[in-house]
Amino acid sequence: MLERLKEDVLQANLALPSYGLITFTWGNVSGYDKDSGLVVIKPSGVPYSEMTIDDLVVVDLEGNVVEGNKKPSSDTPTHLVLYKNFDGIGGVVHTHSPWATSWAQAGRSLPALGTTHGDYFYGSIPCTRQMTDAEINGAYEHETGEVIVETFKTIDPLSVPSVLVHSHAPFNWGKDPEEAVHNAVVLEEVAKMALRTYQINPDTEVMQQTILDKHYLRKHGKDAYYGQN
Amino acid sequence: MLERLKEDVLQANLALPSYGLITFTWGNVSGYDKDSGLVVIKPSGVPYSEMTIDDLVVVDLEGNVVEGNKKPSSDTPTHLVLYKNFDGIGGVVHTHSPWATSWAQAGRSLPALGTTHGDYFYGSIPCTRQMTDAEINGAYEHETGEVIVETFKTIDPLSVPSVLVHSHAPFNWGKDPEEAVHNAVVLEEVAKMALRTYQINPDTEVMQQTILDKHYLRKHGKDAYYGQN
Amino acid sequence: MLERLKEDVLQANLALPSYGLITFTWGNVSGYDKDSGLVVIKPSGVPYSEMTIDDLVVVDLEGNVVEGNKKPSSDTPTHLVLYKNFDGIGGVVHTHSPWATSWAQAGRSLPALGTTHGDYFYGSIPCTRQMTDAEINGAYEHETGEVIVETFKTIDPLSVPSVLVHSHAPFNWGKDPEEAVHNAVVLEEVAKMALRTYQINPDTEVMQQTILDKHYLRKHGKDAYYGQN
Amino acid sequence: MLERLKEDVLQANLALPSYGLITFTWGNVSGYDKDSGLVVIKPSGVPYSEMTIDDLVVVDLEGNVVEGNKKPSSDTPTHLVLYKNFDGIGGVVHTHSPWATSWAQAGRSLPALGTTHGDYFYGSIPCTRQMTDAEINGAYEHETGEVIVETFKTIDPLSVPSVLVHSHAPFNWGKDPEEAVHNAVVLEEVAKMALRTYQINPDTEVMQQTILDKHYLRKHGKDAYYGQN
Repeated sequence: MLERLKEDVLQANLALPSYGLITFTWGNVSGYDKDSGLVVIKPSGVPYSEMTIDDLVVVDLEGNVVEGNKKPSSDTPTHLVLYKNFDGIGGVVHTHSPWATSWAQAGRSLPALGTTHGDYFYGSIPCTRQMTDAEINGAYEHETGEVIVETFKTIDPLSVPSVLVHSHAPFNWGKDPEEAVHNAVVLEEVAKMALRTYQINPDTEVMQQTILDKHYLRKHGKDAYYGQN
Repeated sequence: MLERLKEDVLQANLALPSYGLITFTWGNVSGYDKDSGLVVIKPSGVPYSEMTIDDLVVVDLEGNVVEGNKKPSSDTPTHLVLYKNFDGIGGVVHTHSPWATSWAQAGRSLPALGTTHGDYFYGSIPCTRQMTDAEINGAYEHETGEVIVETFKTIDPLSVPSVLVHSHAPFNWGKDPEEAVHNAVVLEEVAKMALRTYQINPDTEVMQQTILDKHYLRKHGKDAYYGQN
Repeated sequence: MLERLKEDVLQANLALPSYGLITFTWGNVSGYDKDSGLVVIKPSGVPYSEMTIDDLVVVDLEGNVVEGNKKPSSDTPTHLVLYKNFDGIGGVVHTHSPWATSWAQAGRSLPALGTTHGDYFYGSIPCTRQMTDAEINGAYEHETGEVIVETFKTIDPLSVPSVLVHSHAPFNWGKDPEEAVHNAVVLEEVAKMALRTYQINPDTEVMQQTILDKHYLRKHGKDAYYGQN
Repeated sequence: MLERLKEDVLQANLALPSYGLITFTWGNVSGYDKDSGLVVIKPSGVPYSEMTIDDLVVVDLEGNVVEGNKKPSSDTPTHLVLYKNFDGIGGVVHTHSPWATSWAQAGRSLPALGTTHGDYFYGSIPCTRQMTDAEINGAYEHETGEVIVETFKTIDPLSVPSVLVHSHAPFNWGKDPEEAVHNAVVLEEVAKMALRTYQINPDTEVMQQTILDKHYLRKHGKDAYYGQN
């Protein structure tokens, strides 16, 4: 079942180490099939170099395994919360990519400092609040998703497709697994440049709203003119 | 038409990812043929790994497509302003290379701190002023070129063949596409070293004018003695 | 003798350069066979690219060479002290991996700032005190081991399987050589991220104890649920 | 003539890009044959990827070309001063390796902060004074060598086989070209770690003299015990 989506999820998982976003088995990609309401996700703790399409696990939105012999990623409940709450997303990526993770550990949102950021993210990439002891000791991975959703109460997740989970690492999403990985790569790049920017000039201000509008909207929305239509 | 220049532009575009200056499709190279007044440029949003010579677009200096099935790079108007205003250049390169982009985001010109810089750039590499809302909301990519030209009112673009566009990223040029890429690589290297230099010694001063003269002029101009004539 | 362990030790040594932890011959891996009380260790100063299984040296816990034509690593006495004092370890790795070594040179313990750290290390990775002149001028490599053991008087070495030796570099261990190398890779990654975290936010506090408990214990101990059972 | 030395010089030059010390043609290696008093050196401005043994140039200690069709490196006079003044060296390497060059641009000597440094350099790696206008406008490359020699008036160049030339970049040497390259690699590594060490702990002091003695002398001199005799 879902063979096309499985292939996309496999390729997206394998892309993570090739983009330098992954050490060992840290990180995972899933894909969502809206019609069936099912999610294809990476198995837990399987090395990328050995992963095949048969290792992927199919779960429903409640986390029940529908197909597969392996345990799904331990972060599966986080992915499911995102699919249930963020309309229109079809892929989720979690990594511990080092630059973005450093911002998450620092508990700081990542401001929009230039057009590289503005081409993909329409404003700051937020860092969640710290989780409470009750959330951590409860259904931890599910609550991680809930804290992300809470963070996006006033932010459109389709315009800002990444989040930094406090003391942890980023989650990214997109219309499909490939786009989610794409956003994870961009996040890592802008996280790196933002720290260096502040090191060059600690008084750097966020970019002008006009130029953020210009860059984001020339690549997204009905008036976009970047790329080959 | 312009088959030789197309080949040069293709090779220069493909060199960008191999030098580590490019993520995804960010960046573009063009070449200018003075005799015909035509420019060969990268298509918009086409992955480097798939780009062939047939994807390149030929435009005139007003931006009219003369040959090619693809849309030219969205940054084409910026390239055209540079060719029209900077006598003697035959190639332009735009990248979001991370170190140089960090300086651009910080809004800081890159001072000459050592001979690596002085071998290629005869003084500071300037950062443009911020663009006005009118410029951004107008013919944005054209106005970007105009702001670069304004920045070089009192600087010789042949002696300082790169610029940092505020809140954006660098543009570089040269006598041909290959030299423009070469300058883009050097810019990235000196941008990296300059930040580290200040981190080692925040009171570092710009290099002595005498040694800047010596290094720049031993590689450029009529008394150059570097390389195999 | 110990052919299986030799193969493991060889592979673990060869893994060091492939993980980018090693320059030239800096660093060494050993493995311990509890039944025989013997240790297999890298020879001193042999390039990784030329190393074969026949170059490995077998020593007893007193450092007597039991098999092999080469001199064992000059750090052998340090390894032996660790095997004698840390029950349950079967592999030791020493590297001069640059991020961890920078923390060692700075004389600073590496605090737990996020879940990447907490997944492998149950608390700060300690830096030893400086060694005394008597220790340095005495049986230096043996005394290095003794200072490490002293540092773990109140820390469980199985829960914190790495140490930073002051003004020197890290040692790591694990249940076997492969796990010790794995821990060396993680140490380098968290050492890198910790500095950047402080650069982003100098007031970053150590992670909440609750989340450290959660992450460490979901991967270790009887209630672990990460990976394929 | 000097075929063996030429081969060593060629291999040492080709090693520079493979160690990541070189961008484009920046940098050069020479080797010295004490018996004949001749030096084999890289040609000026020839790409490493195209360099063959026939491109190498043989010069005498006064800089006269004895063999070869190419112009020798523009830095040749600096190499010659070092061979004439530093007894026992047989190879010289100049690079613009980015970490060491950043220290040179900052005008700061590189202190011994840990055993990685102490294993190869018996104390600080000095930065020269700035050159005078007369020196720069005179026989610049020769004077560069003289300033290096002046810097080593009270330092043994065999115990500290590298120097940072102010506002420029490092020169390194050794008993032969290979050892000089080896020292250039180590310099780059310790230059990187030293900056990070100060970023972790700005109050880091230089390493204890006792441990510097121990590490340097266990690898060098009559009582060395590192490696396979």
